Amino acid sequence: MIDLYTYATPNGRKPAILLEELELPYTIHKIDIGKGEQFSPKFVAINPNSKIPVIVDRDADITVFESGAILIYLAEKTSKLLPTVTVDRVKVIEWLMFQMASVGPMFGQLGHFRNAAPEQLPYAIARYETETRRLLGVLDRQLADQPYIAGDYSIADIATFPWVAAVKSPYLNVSLDDVPAVQRWIEQMKTRPAVRVGMDILDPDYSSTFGTLAGAEEAIAQ
Amino acid sequence: MIDLYTYATPNGRKPAILLEELELPYTIHKIDIGKGEQFSPKFVAINPNSKIPVIVDRDADITVFESGAILIYLAEKTSKLLPTVTVDRVKVIEWLMFQMASVGPMFGQLGHFRNAAPEQLPYAIARYETETRRLLGVLDRQLADQPYIAGDYSIADIATFPWVAAVKSPYLNVSLDDVPAVQRWIEQMKTRPAVRVGMDILDPDYSSTFGTLAGAEEAIAQ
Repeated sequence: MIDLYTYATPNGRKPAILLEELELPYTIHKIDIGKGEQFSPKFVAINPNSKIPVIVDRDADITVFESGAILIYLAEKTSKLLPTVTVDRVKVIEWLMFQMASVGPMFGQLGHFRNAAPEQLPYAIARYETETRRLLGVLDRQLADQPYIAGDYSIADIATFPWVAAVKSPYLNVSLDDVPAVQRWIEQMKTRPAVRVGMDILDPDYSSTFGTLAGAEEAIAQ
Repeated sequence: MIDLYTYATPNGRKPAILLEELELPYTIHKIDIGKGEQFSPKFVAINPNSKIPVIVDRDADITVFESGAILIYLAEKTSKLLPTVTVDRVKVIEWLMFQMASVGPMFGQLGHFRNAAPEQLPYAIARYETETRRLLGVLDRQLADQPYIAGDYSIADIATFPWVAAVKSPYLNVSLDDVPAVQRWIEQMKTRPAVRVGMDILDPDYSSTFGTLAGAEEAIAQ
């Protein structure tokens, strides 16, 4: 049994989608980051960086934090969605890193400066909106001639989807009009039952409304 | 033979340090990001995200972008500095992700708002300085009772060192006084010949002066 400590944010949804895809049994433990529960001594003991998500794989007696590390751990545990053939494996890991190092942090900064910062700073908002659009353009070119980000469906798609699904929300408020391949990929991802279930954790109607929900405001924590 | 397309930045130094540690032969190709060379069609062909570093492993006919993916690729190619035993492997990958998702992007934003932004925005500077200090504190607690970030020396140290080595530079200008374990780890890392050579790529005197160099200003690109 796997314990998933998480919240209804893009990073928090990634492991739920993968656990659903892998059909591994898991129990969700809500860590309310709005209430600062990630700073409790009990949580810091499983992630010294005080961020969700974290998994505890009780059978293996392994704790894993950082969403990207959780995805690699679960994929390697089950030998699924992360190829072992080097040329394919490299593609998945580089696009997973692209999500971890750019898509997540930069979309997150846009959300912060649009919504959470105590003053409106046009320069900062423009900086992160421009970078968000640039990153969406990179993804669009990558998806233009193949169904998924790294070719076949993989943990790179699972990592990226919850962030891209929030782009049109009032919280980020960036258009997808210029990235038709990204739009097509979103529709394709939404047809996967595991994606819908994973997106709905702790927020049962999210998958039917994402992209429009005002509630997405609390969905992005940085 | 491995071709390393890079520049003298924290991310650009990581693969050089690892290639030195692994004693793999490589050729450096300078991509001057100050001149925008990362946007040339030739470079975009090897990294659609227009960021250094990239490696081309000619013998294996494999191209890898994203510094974190390059570190994993080279470690797996040589079976070094990334354990295969799960409990140890997880630690290295989660701290590598911590660097990729937090240390790099957040230190980089601090550098941008302190130096490159066209106007001084106190709120943005304070936001990223606070986060930089918090991340250094997380690292300090991790290093308090073990020599390296994930226990034994690994690609997690190689990923993190070039960023932490820039913290005291005028570009980032954050004190390390409150993080004695990080200071001890920096001194330990500096004794490794591979680290010194890797830090000096395209900037031959950097390793003897880092932390003080005004030239560190161009060392961080985000």
